[in-house]
Amino acid sequence: MQRMLKEIRIAGFGGQGVILAAAVIGKAEAIFHGGYACMTQSFGPEARGGSSSAQVILSSDPILYPYVTHPDILVVMSQEAYTRFSPQLKPGGILVIEQELVRIDKMPSNVRVYGVPATRLAEEIGKKVVLNIVMVGFFGAVTNILDPDSLRKAVADSVPPAMQALNLKAFDKGFAYGSELMERLKENGDHEDVGVLEAV
Amino acid sequence: MQRMLKEIRIAGFGGQGVILAAAVIGKAEAIFHGGYACMTQSFGPEARGGSSSAQVILSSDPILYPYVTHPDILVVMSQEAYTRFSPQLKPGGILVIEQELVRIDKMPSNVRVYGVPATRLAEEIGKKVVLNIVMVGFFGAVTNILDPDSLRKAVADSVPPAMQALNLKAFDKGFAYGSELMERLKENGDHEDVGVLEAV
Repeated sequence: MQRMLKEIRIAGFGGQGVILAAAVIGKAEAIFHGGYACMTQSFGPEARGGSSSAQVILSSDPILYPYVTHPDILVVMSQEAYTRFSPQLKPGGILVIEQELVRIDKMPSNVRVYGVPATRLAEEIGKKVVLNIVMVGFFGAVTNILDPDSLRKAVADSVPPAMQALNLKAFDKGFAYGSELMERLKENGDHEDVGVLEAV
Repeated sequence: MQRMLKEIRIAGFGGQGVILAAAVIGKAEAIFHGGYACMTQSFGPEARGGSSSAQVILSSDPILYPYVTHPDILVVMSQEAYTRFSPQLKPGGILVIEQELVRIDKMPSNVRVYGVPATRLAEEIGKKVVLNIVMVGFFGAVTNILDPDSLRKAVADSVPPAMQALNLKAFDKGFAYGSELMERLKENGDHEDVGVLEAV
């Protein structure tokens, strides 16, 4: 088995479903890959003011130290979260943004950026509240660190039965958007380039 | 300030909103009490099979070691969760159960047990999915370790704006049910007794 260790931070404002998104990603690794995952959320004084942040570690080995300091992947759904956490991203890391809620002012160097209008896509399927699951689908497509089927099953497993169809639709929509973006970037030959790779 | 350290585990099956319930409790302490809170969720092989468990530590001091091994308070919303986690509860601890989903076979000694029909109460206000927030309200009333207003504000802060009214109603319903139960137990003079204190 290939050894793997990925640290991920997901952040946004309260009510966007940041924690559920983190839990889905952790579950996908642990349940379907035989790996390990740990989610932490610290609510110190910095958590005041309506922002929300969760950390996930995915690993092929048991996790002894669960805190994330410099993530490999940062997913942000608010400008405040972007401002606060983007300086911590590892060199060579991946930044995933809700592109209508986050404006990149100063481009971090040596980072790949992928943007998705998750809120708008969620509204298109009728429920703004599933924007977090649209983000998870998009995350799956652009990072490619998890098996898409595992991720999709983790979505179904993490929401009440009555909400499954809606959330799977949200996942598929985000995933398709991300896949198309990656396809387009590959055609343009800049797949491995560093830069803002938003699908505008 | 009074020093405090409480370890809490919340467990049930997937889709019941275990993680959100844990996050609300952590947030209440950190945001409104100036304290610290940390939530962890480990998804090892034991997470397979649709069960869900989250741990929260509430502390007046920064938290260095975030794992819970023997909780002071255990909240369970499924029989499987009860069977698995109740042996780990600390002596003198508190067990909070969804009384229509959990049947206590072998009463743990030296533990106070409080039961609430959270699923039914959630259905009464029209949405079974808010059973987790009914549990949080009940938890607040029977444990009395958090300021009720902080807990209520943490509920509002953790759900999307369109879902706030419903979730606050669920919180109030669970809290009222717990307050009445505690009042009744006090009248009966067995408030500090050890035993099954379900409101049947």
